[in-house]
Amino acid sequence: MQKTPKAAYEELVQRMKNIALLGNTASVLHWDMETYMPSAGAEYRSQQLSLLSGMLHEQFTAPEMGDLLARVEQSELVKDPLSDYAVNVREIRREYDREVKVPKSLVEELVRVTSLAHVVWREARKNSDFKAFQPTLENVVRLTLEKADAIATGPTRYDTLLDGYEPGMTTDRMKAVFTALGNELNPFVEEILSSGKEPDRTILTRKYPTDRQAVLGQILVGAIGFDLAGGRIDVTTHPFCAQVGLGDVRVTTRYNERDLGDAMFGLLHEAGHGLYDQGTDPAHFGLPRGGFASLGIHESQSRMWENLVGRSRGFWHFALPIAKSVFPEALSDVSIDAFYWAVNDVQRSYIRVEADEATYNLHVLLRFEIEQAIVSGDLAVADIPGAWNEKMQQLLHITPRNDAEGCLQDTHWSGGSFGYFPTYTLGNLYAAQFFEQAQADLGDLDEQFRRGDFLPLREWLKEKIHRQGMRYRANELVEEVTGRPLSHEPLMRHLKNKLGSLYGVARETG
Amino acid sequence: MQKTPKAAYEELVQRMKNIALLGNTASVLHWDMETYMPSAGAEYRSQQLSLLSGMLHEQFTAPEMGDLLARVEQSELVKDPLSDYAVNVREIRREYDREVKVPKSLVEELVRVTSLAHVVWREARKNSDFKAFQPTLENVVRLTLEKADAIATGPTRYDTLLDGYEPGMTTDRMKAVFTALGNELNPFVEEILSSGKEPDRTILTRKYPTDRQAVLGQILVGAIGFDLAGGRIDVTTHPFCAQVGLGDVRVTTRYNERDLGDAMFGLLHEAGHGLYDQGTDPAHFGLPRGGFASLGIHESQSRMWENLVGRSRGFWHFALPIAKSVFPEALSDVSIDAFYWAVNDVQRSYIRVEADEATYNLHVLLRFEIEQAIVSGDLAVADIPGAWNEKMQQLLHITPRNDAEGCLQDTHWSGGSFGYFPTYTLGNLYAAQFFEQAQADLGDLDEQFRRGDFLPLREWLKEKIHRQGMRYRANELVEEVTGRPLSHEPLMRHLKNKLGSLYGVARETG
Repeated sequence: MQKTPKAAYEELVQRMKNIALLGNTASVLHWDMETYMPSAGAEYRSQQLSLLSGMLHEQFTAPEMGDLLARVEQSELVKDPLSDYAVNVREIRREYDREVKVPKSLVEELVRVTSLAHVVWREARKNSDFKAFQPTLENVVRLTLEKADAIATGPTRYDTLLDGYEPGMTTDRMKAVFTALGNELNPFVEEILSSGKEPDRTILTRKYPTDRQAVLGQILVGAIGFDLAGGRIDVTTHPFCAQVGLGDVRVTTRYNERDLGDAMFGLLHEAGHGLYDQGTDPAHFGLPRGGFASLGIHESQSRMWENLVGRSRGFWHFALPIAKSVFPEALSDVSIDAFYWAVNDVQRSYIRVEADEATYNLHVLLRFEIEQAIVSGDLAVADIPGAWNEKMQQLLHITPRNDAEGCLQDTHWSGGSFGYFPTYTLGNLYAAQFFEQAQADLGDLDEQFRRGDFLPLREWLKEKIHRQGMRYRANELVEEVTGRPLSHEPLMRHLKNKLGSLYGVARETG
Repeated sequence: MQKTPKAAYEELVQRMKNIALLGNTASVLHWDMETYMPSAGAEYRSQQLSLLSGMLHEQFTAPEMGDLLARVEQSELVKDPLSDYAVNVREIRREYDREVKVPKSLVEELVRVTSLAHVVWREARKNSDFKAFQPTLENVVRLTLEKADAIATGPTRYDTLLDGYEPGMTTDRMKAVFTALGNELNPFVEEILSSGKEPDRTILTRKYPTDRQAVLGQILVGAIGFDLAGGRIDVTTHPFCAQVGLGDVRVTTRYNERDLGDAMFGLLHEAGHGLYDQGTDPAHFGLPRGGFASLGIHESQSRMWENLVGRSRGFWHFALPIAKSVFPEALSDVSIDAFYWAVNDVQRSYIRVEADEATYNLHVLLRFEIEQAIVSGDLAVADIPGAWNEKMQQLLHITPRNDAEGCLQDTHWSGGSFGYFPTYTLGNLYAAQFFEQAQADLGDLDEQFRRGDFLPLREWLKEKIHRQGMRYRANELVEEVTGRPLSHEPLMRHLKNKLGSLYGVARETG
């Protein structure tokens, strides 16, 4: 006797929740690998992750999954496309159709190879030795392209890869986004950099003992509402945020005694991701309805708390007195104006994660262009360092002194994450557009931040974005929340307003 | 076509190694639960562990496993009972025959219930509230007995449970061990306690800042040879050692500013377990041949490093000067004689893990008797506190002031580990007997310890015990290594020699 659609749906949900239990198990192993695992455990851990990835693939692509999906899809349950039923079925189908095309052996090999590639990359970066990384990266690229060719949902491999991170996004639309943004951003950045003005750059590089940075970081992260009873802060070389279970969201950071900004903005960034994870609907945990819309939307939350909140004047009106209590020696003579400018310092720099709000997107554009060339086969892995340095010269008029501050700086490619970088710029654009809308809905946010009141914004984000899960595609969500399609204008307005005042250049008044 | 025995064996090995990959994944989750997991993650974690236990059970008891075992068992491969083939097949068979009788649902329920019971127990202990724990413990007991009844390898349930931890051991033999030991130990303890002598007990309870305890602990653990490139030390309420992967052995401890001994002997104990795990044969990792003989043998290694090494005069000749550098304020006036006596202080106490070498086994005897009564149904869970206090009075002439220092002190029963406690006393007996043999083989160990030279003993243990894996049953291993069957005499000789001198009582000369 055939299952009722309802029964089929329930079984689908049960299977997905079990898959999530196992997937989150792999997340704990990943988190542990990056935080506490002793070095001698790396090889065995890569085998564990490989095994789990194979099991997850097998469970997710089981023929029964296809049958259950088909049973529900033919029913009345999914009639309303915004119902929980429809959203879950649509997104599981989407993922199922991609995954089912990838052989289990390839899934396992990719995980095994990238786990170990991570270690090779870390060592190569430390020694600034691209040649030591090259054969490993070639292997990762080969496997990634094999996977893209197997899935082949888009007109090009890059479309297929990009669509994996930002469902619905295409290479052409991404190019159009960068062109529109670049046309306004490039002259604006040039204008700032030739203004001859700069903040007191010594402020953030005074002596900030790392144990006290941890204290301040925990206060700030707690102040914006990250729940530490359902989360943690740990130390890693490469900061990230990982939800490893229901009620268990973990952010990481690094501390540099001579750089207060690195940890503070890093923590606000990761806690922004964490607030998204903590804000999703626990009743739908493990299902698309309780997940996140896209990586770009996820990044919009981290960039919002890092930049639109964390680099605002209101935020530091609230936070600077706290920072002065924690670091009286370093900060007692620093005014709010000087500090505010120091955290909004625009300059040509080598490292993406340390870049200011204005130049950041140029770093992303560089990666977007290079990885398209790698994926299309136009650029050999061996030629990456040359191409990188050339583009840095074009876009930022500087040349890295070595590959550690050039093409070896990011971990993404070692993990096979080609097509991921553009979601960072999407995150910036979404964030600015959401923030403008939040201002319109909630009144003077800066005034609220001055009082340490982050609740209205946080609740607004939770209701409008976090709780929506995957109900809407990213572009639909933007329209739903702001009433307009994605545009580069809110970000440019924000940058011109803020940086225009600081640097005394073209200020947008609109 | 039927598989060749060799091919069947290879497939068996491959399956076992995959099961180990998954089993060690569960170990990482356990370790994380005890160390870093935020409290809100507990419920989801118990679901993860339950799922994994069910998957492990399913994989291990798959019909193919039985077929493969049978194929190899009928072949020439296992002719030599001490060959790797024979050892692996014998032990996998043993475990398979036990596991296959337990329904998967019971395995999953036990893990889910005990994961949460651990949290309930911790809270109950904190509040010294047995009533709050009672219904949970009743549930755990019910499920544990259900499991014992399903397996039913021994004449009684307790035999079945005990055999799960100490293969080949029976309740009757265990009783005989305790009787023989008790006959000599009880009067000896009475003699010490009525000697009227005691060390300067203030020495270990001076002020020892915990961050510096961590420094000293790491030095001592490193000195005895625990490899920190393949291991870690973390903080937990309830110290343990867990091998969570190949090249990844993790010990935990707790620090109490007013008790130097708690962390130092705790660390030496756990690192003793760790040395066993690090000493097994990596080529056989995940197989019985690369495992450990029994829990009693494992405990013999921890107790050896904690007591026979860590509480020896030679050890502190080496370590006290280091401790004085780390804690000059607390220790500068302390002589080696005073310190040596302080770490060998014999007294009536409530807490097993803090008990001295002599009274420790009385604490174990108490648990052995009570858990037999629980398992046989003679003692209701509700009556545990009364029975506990009565036995404490009988054995140690003291009555706990509350259940936190009485029947709630240990975590074992919350985890369904009935039949586990006796392995602690077996560990003490094995340790003393091994140590006597090592002395005979290696010469004056105390002299070696004085020089900080722990290599000869460590290598001896590695060769004689760690590398043997499960080649021998515990009782066979004892005979193989020492040429004699297990006896209480080496332990009594050790105690009488050491404590006899300190307390000026009956000193064994033989």
